[in-house]
Amino acid sequence: MPQPFDLTACEALELIRRKKLGVLELLDSCLSRVETLEPEINAWKFLAPEAARDRAKQLDNSDPDSPMHGIPLGVKDVIDTADMPSGYGSPIYERHRPAADAACVAVAKRNGAIILGKTVTTEFACGSTARTSNPLNINHTSGGSSAGSCAAVAAKMIPVSFGTQSASSTIRPASYCGLVGMRPSMGVISVAGFKYFNGSFDTIGLLARSVDDVELLWTSQMDVPFKPGALRAKAPKILVCYPPWMTGCEPSAREAIDKTAAAMAAAGAKIELLELPAEYADLPELHYEIQRFETARSYAHEYGTAADRLDWRVRQTVEEGMKIRGDRYIEMTKRAQKLRHEFPALMGDADAIMTNAAPGEAPQNWRLLGDDFKMGDPLQSRAWTLLHLPTVTVPSLIGPQGLPVGVQFLSPFGSDQALLGIARWAESVLKPSLVARSA
Amino acid sequence: MPQPFDLTACEALELIRRKKLGVLELLDSCLSRVETLEPEINAWKFLAPEAARDRAKQLDNSDPDSPMHGIPLGVKDVIDTADMPSGYGSPIYERHRPAADAACVAVAKRNGAIILGKTVTTEFACGSTARTSNPLNINHTSGGSSAGSCAAVAAKMIPVSFGTQSASSTIRPASYCGLVGMRPSMGVISVAGFKYFNGSFDTIGLLARSVDDVELLWTSQMDVPFKPGALRAKAPKILVCYPPWMTGCEPSAREAIDKTAAAMAAAGAKIELLELPAEYADLPELHYEIQRFETARSYAHEYGTAADRLDWRVRQTVEEGMKIRGDRYIEMTKRAQKLRHEFPALMGDADAIMTNAAPGEAPQNWRLLGDDFKMGDPLQSRAWTLLHLPTVTVPSLIGPQGLPVGVQFLSPFGSDQALLGIARWAESVLKPSLVARSA
Repeated sequence: MPQPFDLTACEALELIRRKKLGVLELLDSCLSRVETLEPEINAWKFLAPEAARDRAKQLDNSDPDSPMHGIPLGVKDVIDTADMPSGYGSPIYERHRPAADAACVAVAKRNGAIILGKTVTTEFACGSTARTSNPLNINHTSGGSSAGSCAAVAAKMIPVSFGTQSASSTIRPASYCGLVGMRPSMGVISVAGFKYFNGSFDTIGLLARSVDDVELLWTSQMDVPFKPGALRAKAPKILVCYPPWMTGCEPSAREAIDKTAAAMAAAGAKIELLELPAEYADLPELHYEIQRFETARSYAHEYGTAADRLDWRVRQTVEEGMKIRGDRYIEMTKRAQKLRHEFPALMGDADAIMTNAAPGEAPQNWRLLGDDFKMGDPLQSRAWTLLHLPTVTVPSLIGPQGLPVGVQFLSPFGSDQALLGIARWAESVLKPSLVARSA
Repeated sequence: MPQPFDLTACEALELIRRKKLGVLELLDSCLSRVETLEPEINAWKFLAPEAARDRAKQLDNSDPDSPMHGIPLGVKDVIDTADMPSGYGSPIYERHRPAADAACVAVAKRNGAIILGKTVTTEFACGSTARTSNPLNINHTSGGSSAGSCAAVAAKMIPVSFGTQSASSTIRPASYCGLVGMRPSMGVISVAGFKYFNGSFDTIGLLARSVDDVELLWTSQMDVPFKPGALRAKAPKILVCYPPWMTGCEPSAREAIDKTAAAMAAAGAKIELLELPAEYADLPELHYEIQRFETARSYAHEYGTAADRLDWRVRQTVEEGMKIRGDRYIEMTKRAQKLRHEFPALMGDADAIMTNAAPGEAPQNWRLLGDDFKMGDPLQSRAWTLLHLPTVTVPSLIGPQGLPVGVQFLSPFGSDQALLGIARWAESVLKPSLVARSA
């Protein structure tokens, strides 16, 4: 029999508004789920169950008319919270308590969401690893850097969470955990209070188990009315893309694209193959070099005062970034601006590009590999992040290790809601063929 | 007889490197200047003279090879410092001590600069007023929001400082104080650690008494070698622009453009009149509406928890921003992106646009007007800030009240150093005709 924690945020909201479910009832169900699974998953850096229960009681005594009334929400620990520690995944910030909530947190609270706690992140969303298990198989990583935000939603401890993405930190772990994940258009959701990483790329990521829930998060942040769930009437035109940087991917990454294209075509979508222009080949490296230049500045203080306490990958990124000259950075930025401007022409009259979301299934973790485990390569989303596009991943298939593999849909800057419409249509086409997963 | 505090940063650096001036000697001269003038000026929110003297002694015992070796620097109090309070001009943050230095501060320290203290700002660089006097006439404001950073440099308490600009907060007060001020191309100097205001516009502003010193700040932040002072050989081609939003300006604003154009023409520059396209007419309003949307999010926490402690202008900006829908914000952002892309074509083969920097001379302050005084209208730079252009103001003339009036030079994104070359040429043309000012 389904429990409240099984519900999506939209399903729960509907019941709460009809007085069929209490906010506290939902929260306690989620907390029981946390209690059961957290010891093996390690999704949370900090939990605030009592403050959350107090808030739930308040909300049970008020009109359920706010957009996220009573919905439990997880917040990645690189996003500031004034009433909880914000450690940024770094020993330097172990007891850090910011003065203010991040913009996305303050807006979510105003909209009735309940912040259940802070989720595990790699250091500064840039470090090498975090010891969070994939709820679908605890011997595998949940991916990074939004490790805990993905694991907590996949384990049904919470219906929705905030991650971040400056390279592939939302889309990749969402694919690993079988989630719907969104990186909105660059800049449209405020990053005020996200521990500054890359001014050119920092984005708040949205994580959920359905496209509707991702759209609920997006619309509530943007103060746009949420009209849930209607499927687009017309089958979309989709450009299928196998980028040159897929060379090292597992076969399942390509199979996810193939399968999704076939399923969408069978449902009436027009599918065409997109050959990326030759100048796209080095976009992952262009992203990475801009990222290093900016990271050297973002963490100049930490590097200057406590370099020995930095994760090796953060330190390496800073040191490499310090070797890049500002005039080269400006030229790279201008090239990125030009490509962003030209992107809509590449799309033509298509509704979206569909491509891989990750290099394959979630890698094995420390339980099988010891300290040498990895969280997966960010390469597959660097180009799309560079281009400031909105992107949504949906699960496509179950790979040979029994873990999900997603695809991602991309469209021009600012077309976030239209893209969610495409993702919802794809979700409806793909869902019946996905093996039911139990957490 | 000139004192060390009279020196520009470049002049002081030259003497320090030739062992003709000690770092401590320079610092103590600046501190004596602070002691004399600060009671009337109120440029500083916080001063750290002892820590600065300790650092000066260290630097006197090390090789003077860093780009800003021993140069005293002021930092606007919306920019984080880990070793000094950072109050953001707000009573809410009165005792706030951030965990990290802002990127620009950490980089400046690495480059040998000495942070002398935090300079007065209007609240969050967004509030209505700050009680800082103009060193050229203490009955007038120094302008805002970078009030103290401009006043301290104009009063020769320090040679250089960091301000910020999200609308006109560097260019306008620099013009009021007779300074050279620069708003670099959007994003090229990291804003990590600048109390987040507008993701679309936030910029670190550079303030000094010469173009060379501004270029020293810019190159040291960008890790680009500084080759001081050579004047461009070829007279530039300049487009003179009297924007439609100048309607309410004092006559001196237009006269500054006229005079600068005449002086540059006499020195061989090619001068042409630029008529802005009709679609530029509402760009100040486009900037302002995007600013309000973003501000409602940036200060959502402060508004949600302490609205009664906010400056009326901050509160009003947040409340107006909360009424703007996200889909409208996206459309406005797309329009701004299109205009940014088209800007280089508007320039054609010209080297820069030259236009007004401020509405006129610095307005009178509380000494003459009581609480009703104003810091000057930000309208004149909103469009240029929106377009992400680098812009440099240089003093042009002394107006009827005996206060300076600047012009500003603009050029395409990324052409910051070329623009500084134009500004240096203009400075050399204008300087002989400017009445010498005594502070």
